[in-house]
Amino acid sequence: MDRMFASDNASGAHPDVMAALSAANDGHAHAYGNEPWTERAIAVIRKHLGEQVEPSFVFNGTGANVTGLSAVMRPFEAIICATTAHINSDECGAPERFTGGKLMDLPTADGKLTPAQVEAAIVKAGVGSEHHSQPRVLSVTQSTEYGTTYRPQELRALADVAHAHGLVMHMDGARISNAAAFLGCGLREITTDVGIDVLSLGGAKNGMLFGEAVVFLDPKLAEGFRFTRKNSAQLASKMRFISAQFTALLEGDLWVRNASHANAMAALLVAGMRDVPGIEITQAVEANEVFARVRRELIKPLQAVSDYYLWDEKSDEVRWVTSWDTQESDVTRFVAAAIAMAGE
Amino acid sequence: MDRMFASDNASGAHPDVMAALSAANDGHAHAYGNEPWTERAIAVIRKHLGEQVEPSFVFNGTGANVTGLSAVMRPFEAIICATTAHINSDECGAPERFTGGKLMDLPTADGKLTPAQVEAAIVKAGVGSEHHSQPRVLSVTQSTEYGTTYRPQELRALADVAHAHGLVMHMDGARISNAAAFLGCGLREITTDVGIDVLSLGGAKNGMLFGEAVVFLDPKLAEGFRFTRKNSAQLASKMRFISAQFTALLEGDLWVRNASHANAMAALLVAGMRDVPGIEITQAVEANEVFARVRRELIKPLQAVSDYYLWDEKSDEVRWVTSWDTQESDVTRFVAAAIAMAGE
Amino acid sequence: MDRMFASDNASGAHPDVMAALSAANDGHAHAYGNEPWTERAIAVIRKHLGEQVEPSFVFNGTGANVTGLSAVMRPFEAIICATTAHINSDECGAPERFTGGKLMDLPTADGKLTPAQVEAAIVKAGVGSEHHSQPRVLSVTQSTEYGTTYRPQELRALADVAHAHGLVMHMDGARISNAAAFLGCGLREITTDVGIDVLSLGGAKNGMLFGEAVVFLDPKLAEGFRFTRKNSAQLASKMRFISAQFTALLEGDLWVRNASHANAMAALLVAGMRDVPGIEITQAVEANEVFARVRRELIKPLQAVSDYYLWDEKSDEVRWVTSWDTQESDVTRFVAAAIAMAGE
Amino acid sequence: MDRMFASDNASGAHPDVMAALSAANDGHAHAYGNEPWTERAIAVIRKHLGEQVEPSFVFNGTGANVTGLSAVMRPFEAIICATTAHINSDECGAPERFTGGKLMDLPTADGKLTPAQVEAAIVKAGVGSEHHSQPRVLSVTQSTEYGTTYRPQELRALADVAHAHGLVMHMDGARISNAAAFLGCGLREITTDVGIDVLSLGGAKNGMLFGEAVVFLDPKLAEGFRFTRKNSAQLASKMRFISAQFTALLEGDLWVRNASHANAMAALLVAGMRDVPGIEITQAVEANEVFARVRRELIKPLQAVSDYYLWDEKSDEVRWVTSWDTQESDVTRFVAAAIAMAGE
Repeated sequence: MDRMFASDNASGAHPDVMAALSAANDGHAHAYGNEPWTERAIAVIRKHLGEQVEPSFVFNGTGANVTGLSAVMRPFEAIICATTAHINSDECGAPERFTGGKLMDLPTADGKLTPAQVEAAIVKAGVGSEHHSQPRVLSVTQSTEYGTTYRPQELRALADVAHAHGLVMHMDGARISNAAAFLGCGLREITTDVGIDVLSLGGAKNGMLFGEAVVFLDPKLAEGFRFTRKNSAQLASKMRFISAQFTALLEGDLWVRNASHANAMAALLVAGMRDVPGIEITQAVEANEVFARVRRELIKPLQAVSDYYLWDEKSDEVRWVTSWDTQESDVTRFVAAAIAMAGE
Repeated sequence: MDRMFASDNASGAHPDVMAALSAANDGHAHAYGNEPWTERAIAVIRKHLGEQVEPSFVFNGTGANVTGLSAVMRPFEAIICATTAHINSDECGAPERFTGGKLMDLPTADGKLTPAQVEAAIVKAGVGSEHHSQPRVLSVTQSTEYGTTYRPQELRALADVAHAHGLVMHMDGARISNAAAFLGCGLREITTDVGIDVLSLGGAKNGMLFGEAVVFLDPKLAEGFRFTRKNSAQLASKMRFISAQFTALLEGDLWVRNASHANAMAALLVAGMRDVPGIEITQAVEANEVFARVRRELIKPLQAVSDYYLWDEKSDEVRWVTSWDTQESDVTRFVAAAIAMAGE
Repeated sequence: MDRMFASDNASGAHPDVMAALSAANDGHAHAYGNEPWTERAIAVIRKHLGEQVEPSFVFNGTGANVTGLSAVMRPFEAIICATTAHINSDECGAPERFTGGKLMDLPTADGKLTPAQVEAAIVKAGVGSEHHSQPRVLSVTQSTEYGTTYRPQELRALADVAHAHGLVMHMDGARISNAAAFLGCGLREITTDVGIDVLSLGGAKNGMLFGEAVVFLDPKLAEGFRFTRKNSAQLASKMRFISAQFTALLEGDLWVRNASHANAMAALLVAGMRDVPGIEITQAVEANEVFARVRRELIKPLQAVSDYYLWDEKSDEVRWVTSWDTQESDVTRFVAAAIAMAGE
Repeated sequence: MDRMFASDNASGAHPDVMAALSAANDGHAHAYGNEPWTERAIAVIRKHLGEQVEPSFVFNGTGANVTGLSAVMRPFEAIICATTAHINSDECGAPERFTGGKLMDLPTADGKLTPAQVEAAIVKAGVGSEHHSQPRVLSVTQSTEYGTTYRPQELRALADVAHAHGLVMHMDGARISNAAAFLGCGLREITTDVGIDVLSLGGAKNGMLFGEAVVFLDPKLAEGFRFTRKNSAQLASKMRFISAQFTALLEGDLWVRNASHANAMAALLVAGMRDVPGIEITQAVEANEVFARVRRELIKPLQAVSDYYLWDEKSDEVRWVTSWDTQESDVTRFVAAAIAMAGE
């Protein structure tokens, strides 16, 4: 079907991933991960993030977030996150349901929390008073839901605040590859090296069919996690079909090629749209998402050219997402249409 | 890798399923099921089970069970099931976690509940008294965890008891195709036609890579289910990769060919093993599972020939599971090894 | 012990309540409410709120809120409330734990939500989209946590918005008697008559030892509630000891005498403090709570005169709460001390 | 009202408890337990159970059980208990709701678990396998729901099994005073001294109006409990009204006088009933409960003399419970009626 800018979830799987999936369909293997494909994928992730880390494969991003979070929380505890965080705004309350705890969401202009903001929230939360949910996790998204990217030192500063108050530092890395590609660094430099404790390592948005990993960078936090995973209905029986995809993505450089390409397409898109009358770019484009305020009459006609989401009905802000398989021609055709419509 | 008798989850995907998956990897499609592959799979399921049914795709069997159950339950309610039921014994407490409710498990000799037993359990439960969890769901597994199969009239009698007391009738159909193949009937004759209200429709054990469906045969019970699915972390973003597999399985007769083959291999296995000294078949073989008590010294050597599970350490009962891809030679080699060992 | 302004929970029980408690200690009575004391208390509440209402007694305010809320919610649903709402800020996440759902808290200047604000929140919530928690309850506090009071027409306007969107209207009435006393109306005029569906009817803050009631003004919502109450550990075995207190409070006019007195003491306090240099009253005083910004050096010395809470450390805002047993001399002594300190 | 044999919850409060309650109604006190009454009650409990123990007051027995259990459990864990255990049979699934975990109930003849039975259950549970709920708590009731009593060495043997497998040893002590009175020992000899880790210390059934305590005999397990208590809606605002009752009960010997009296009345009752034709005592009477199979025609007429529960409709087993305020004349009148009816 036609490519669009609705979501990186609208794209299919990269051919190399599909080939790896087919290759993994080879006879029998023990269920639930006791097989060579999963061992290899774990080894590959450890090569990226550190030999001590504890990766576990799950089905999807919400599954990764809620199992990772509930593994480290009790019902009287709270998660500090941005208001725009996927866990706060786009998971239908799954984090509350799985953890029993509270989300303390903080407003941001660009999807990025600041250390001062987090510090203030912790102070205000009433730590030690039994009347108030106790902050236990600081969760950031990399790259953010606004397509912006934390620099390593920004993450380190946030992790320092979290750790100073005894909080666990969680990262929703559904688009971590796009962030690393933008920053020109490895996955480790924005996770293990800057104090992240628990990572949702994304796969589906970067060329896999499905599958994410929960990675405990602090392996002590992984205690009991395989029970949490099963008990949360996130244990795949034929696990090799998740792990083989991760190996395809991460063993070579496919992960960064895919992400770099998607980022480049977003850069091309923003470059083309920046000067179109009636279109105002609203966020820095540092990954594979472009946010823009679009003159109301243009929104629907442009969606007819290539579908995308109206992010905020009140402000006419839209979101365009590029993907590993977005073609230059998709972008140029879309920009040309916008220019033509804007000029009418 | 070598085929074994450990589980039908140890098998891979049928080539036709894999081909359908590859075919579905065609450009972009809206995420979360708003695309033709999912529409087609829903239509296919409706053709099997009735035009009024409401199917939803989820990741795995536990996910199907817990979302289907929690959709119809409140935390003060209870599920009546066999002690051996997967939801009771093999889901690490996920049903309790997701529903908040109680499991009332009843002992059986063969994995099959009887109407009298269920009736007695409901009476004993203290319906109407606020001190006791209130029975809300009767859950059966078809075919059962012991490889036995409910006849349609047995299911109807159980559903009648359930409905007479206002309970919802749930079926864990992880191996429903094997049951239908054994009974020589369609899926509808053992679900919609006999009063099942909610069905976990299995895919992974019958030749898919992953994926199950929750089907509300009583469509009124589906109200709000798409929120329950999302909120339970069971909503696949690239859903076409589940639905395309279901279409491959269910549009033609692949579902019943796969299941019949697995059943035939189990029949061959039990025929071969029945007279081996030191091996005693413990359950009727009516699907793709064989249970047997095996002389203790034979258990490990036989596992070395082809791996399988020791079901009960105390009684030396083992489980052999055949699959859509089990070969006659797998069976004959295994039986020959058993005969040889038994004769030593 | 010395009276203070820390909380109306710091006060003891009114002598008439204590006498009723002693009178109820008369031989045996069936447990769990099947006795005349509870029947009488239910009748008394119905006389206030309407013959159709369904009252149930529970232990405490948080218990009333979480059982009432969880009775009408599913885990994928959400509660809209003020940021300052007790359920949001002072119950340690119990509403999230019991309901599994999300709290959508809205900022207010005075603890009071407006219809426009609620309308906007519902629109923004993404009703109908499975990615977002679905608003199910609008919860208001009367009188509010800032000591302000909704007028009946304000409640009606909020209830109209709630009902127009299919939401249940919930009231945390921990201090509803103070609100009614301020407004010069009965309890019904600010509950049943203006569209409240579920009420937490407060007792402990108005002269009882313990005990609250959950009252379903819309009796259809009470279905199954006695199971929810038990399953939430809020069913008192010797229930007569809660219900007899409610009868003492509500059968005559003790409820409004107590509340009016507390309100009068707050009025006296604010009158005395209003012109003290270094003290700035921050909220309208419409019940039994006074909020004030106090010069930092005065806060601790004044607490030594009569204890109270520093509400907001950053802004030096304090809270003074009066009670049914606050004496004029308590107030005048406290005001005199403030004047003396401020003048130094 | 007339005294009966329905439950020790049917009795009211002992006059000394009521007097203590009135005495505690003295001016203001800080809410939530920061006051001398609660400090004193904690000291009294420590004198009984050990200086290191951590007591917390809650509202009721179910509240004590579920907060104590959920404090030490994660959702993938399980509680081993007798089928008759209050947590399994009479709390409407509250333990499942609060803990998210599973109850593994074991049948007993007399309400008492044996070490061998528990050992076997742990072995069978599949410790270490992610497919199965992991045993985390062994819960016993003292005295049991059948009115029988564990000897100290029996408790020690059970605790040894629990601890050998890393389980927490929990005691539902709703009637612990009756057990101690029967055994002629202190509370410590059947709790701290024999390896109990968490205790629900009963008050209401032994002469209080309401109120129980959760006591962590292993104080490490108390970490975070005050948050769990609040988050479970079990934190009393005017806590002095619970703690003053406990002091009245436990500071002197009222606890054992009340319990001994109730036990003596049960002994008198069983002595009188033992030889009545048509009445067969079914359990050893070692506390304040008598179980008997009663000829069906006698059940209702006898209930008219003094009300009680039909325990098992199928076997015509009834339960008679005596209380701190049961009078000899209540017993003799009841026995005389039974004799008269039986002779007709």
